[in-house]
Amino acid sequence: MRSIDWVDGALELVDQTLLPGEVVRLSITDVPTLVDCIKRLAVRGAPAIGVAGAFGVVLAVRTHGTSGADLDAAVASLRNARPTAVNLGRMVDRAAALAPAGFDRVLAEALTIHAEELAASISMGEYGADLVESLVDAASVRTMTICNTGGLATVERGTALAVIQTLHERGKLMEALPLETRPLLQGGRLTTWELQQMGAPFRLLVDSAGPFLLARGEADVVLAGADRIARNGDTANKIGTFSLALAARYAGVPFLIVAPESTVDLETASGSEIEIEDRGSGEVASVGPHRIAPPGVEAVNPAFDVTPADLITAIVTDRRVVRLDMGETLDAVSIGPLRPAASPARADTAR
Amino acid sequence: MRSIDWVDGALELVDQTLLPGEVVRLSITDVPTLVDCIKRLAVRGAPAIGVAGAFGVVLAVRTHGTSGADLDAAVASLRNARPTAVNLGRMVDRAAALAPAGFDRVLAEALTIHAEELAASISMGEYGADLVESLVDAASVRTMTICNTGGLATVERGTALAVIQTLHERGKLMEALPLETRPLLQGGRLTTWELQQMGAPFRLLVDSAGPFLLARGEADVVLAGADRIARNGDTANKIGTFSLALAARYAGVPFLIVAPESTVDLETASGSEIEIEDRGSGEVASVGPHRIAPPGVEAVNPAFDVTPADLITAIVTDRRVVRLDMGETLDAVSIGPLRPAASPARADTAR
Repeated sequence: MRSIDWVDGALELVDQTLLPGEVVRLSITDVPTLVDCIKRLAVRGAPAIGVAGAFGVVLAVRTHGTSGADLDAAVASLRNARPTAVNLGRMVDRAAALAPAGFDRVLAEALTIHAEELAASISMGEYGADLVESLVDAASVRTMTICNTGGLATVERGTALAVIQTLHERGKLMEALPLETRPLLQGGRLTTWELQQMGAPFRLLVDSAGPFLLARGEADVVLAGADRIARNGDTANKIGTFSLALAARYAGVPFLIVAPESTVDLETASGSEIEIEDRGSGEVASVGPHRIAPPGVEAVNPAFDVTPADLITAIVTDRRVVRLDMGETLDAVSIGPLRPAASPARADTAR
Repeated sequence: MRSIDWVDGALELVDQTLLPGEVVRLSITDVPTLVDCIKRLAVRGAPAIGVAGAFGVVLAVRTHGTSGADLDAAVASLRNARPTAVNLGRMVDRAAALAPAGFDRVLAEALTIHAEELAASISMGEYGADLVESLVDAASVRTMTICNTGGLATVERGTALAVIQTLHERGKLMEALPLETRPLLQGGRLTTWELQQMGAPFRLLVDSAGPFLLARGEADVVLAGADRIARNGDTANKIGTFSLALAARYAGVPFLIVAPESTVDLETASGSEIEIEDRGSGEVASVGPHRIAPPGVEAVNPAFDVTPADLITAIVTDRRVVRLDMGETLDAVSIGPLRPAASPARADTAR
């Protein structure tokens, strides 16, 4: 299932706030509605909001024309809908730069971005699964992961979850161990649902159990996505990622970041330059409609953390593997080819 | 407010599953009801269930007499209501050993245990606050903590939270940073409520934010309780404790275990001998009445983890401070005196 598509002049999105209870496809035709969807996480995942942002520029050009203050304001509102992910600003800019060439050209660019993300997910799955098989000395692998990095976070298949799916398709997945990922429970609500869709064996964990199970030797590799990767390899990702990386190091387990090249931000020198979004007290004080904390409770709610490069074994993108543990760096390792799906069997088992 | 009392021939407990929404006092007069309360966590916290277990023996003797198979079965059901905490079995045995001396003697012993736990909480607060003030070079301290270790987990004041309360009463608490503590959210529901009751400044965190905020230098000390402390100092406590200890070490922040002597189990050589209770999938798949995971999802749900002694700065009990970081050991450091409340001002501010 595609989580983002362009259908009959509208941007179609699966509303991720309603999953897994309901599968509702939203049809969006104006920028303010899309900005609201991005802010309330109806569409989420760094690659997915990048694609959505590009289609947002298509909607902006259709409404406001190919130049002018109104177009600029609409583009800026898309750019600023979420602060941490680099993809959003980058894809919005890429589409907006073509506005002078007209609506059709902007739409063609957004469709290209959409197709690129799909190809990137297939490629990340291949690069990542090859790396996991080379790092883990077992016929069948136990993979821990955090947040939702599957098709819902991209266009299809995903980033870290694409690697798990590829391992599953290769018959090499013993078990996935997704963390529920408080406060918004993307792991408990979305990753579980995607693992069920692909028929993969898994067991869900509360976030704080991840580090302990790693220390006990109950996982062979940790796979995480990224919202922004700095030049030195420091990686901003969902809150909790740092904690897993630290425990993976303690346990001697490889810790891999899986994200498209569009997530690599060579203009950010290190993690200390990455702005961390605080999403306020409400998400912590409640779970869905269920209030858990007493009235008046304030929370610290960093949506992301920064994992230092020295805790990361390797960064896997759609075009290369950068072995930070072997001294490789993002600005030195050359960009390689996109990898296609490995075999026709793949197409049969993919959704 | 006392969370456990003996009133008119019945054991009174605050039902912790209903907090913070409702403050309901249960009046319990038979053993099966008490066992059910312990299993469903209406009463929880290692010291509190130890006290409750002792009063359970009082109820058992009243129902089944001072000896016989029925009494033995009732005592065994109390002992086995929770597997990990050492206090429960120990306090049940202490009360049950006096059954031949009659109901009044068993009741007197349970009341003694109740009074001892209260005195122990005051003493832990004094020992712990002195240690924190000596370890942290700041006029006012930021304390991170997990689960609920306050009066609700004991009889009054608590263990780790007693230290925070004592710091607050001394005017030395800048901020408490309680973790919400999934799956049962004892931090989000109960510790927040107790911090509000004592008028202490605090902000709530999701569990996975704790390690990152430690790495960022946003806390000066971590204080955790214990369910069982092995002879070598390895400590079983709420899942998530290990993750905080690991991050505290990474950040160079002291990590303190605060628990009564009754939690120290010299007969258990190390953490590898401690049984870890798995409480099943239901608690992870739901938050209160709100289901979060899709139907059919299985979870790994270890209720506790084991923090190795080499990640623990010191163990603070009601009778001593054992500086593991300085090579001290539980079997070598002698037991000292209970400490009384430091000043009359204390009694005025305590609840």
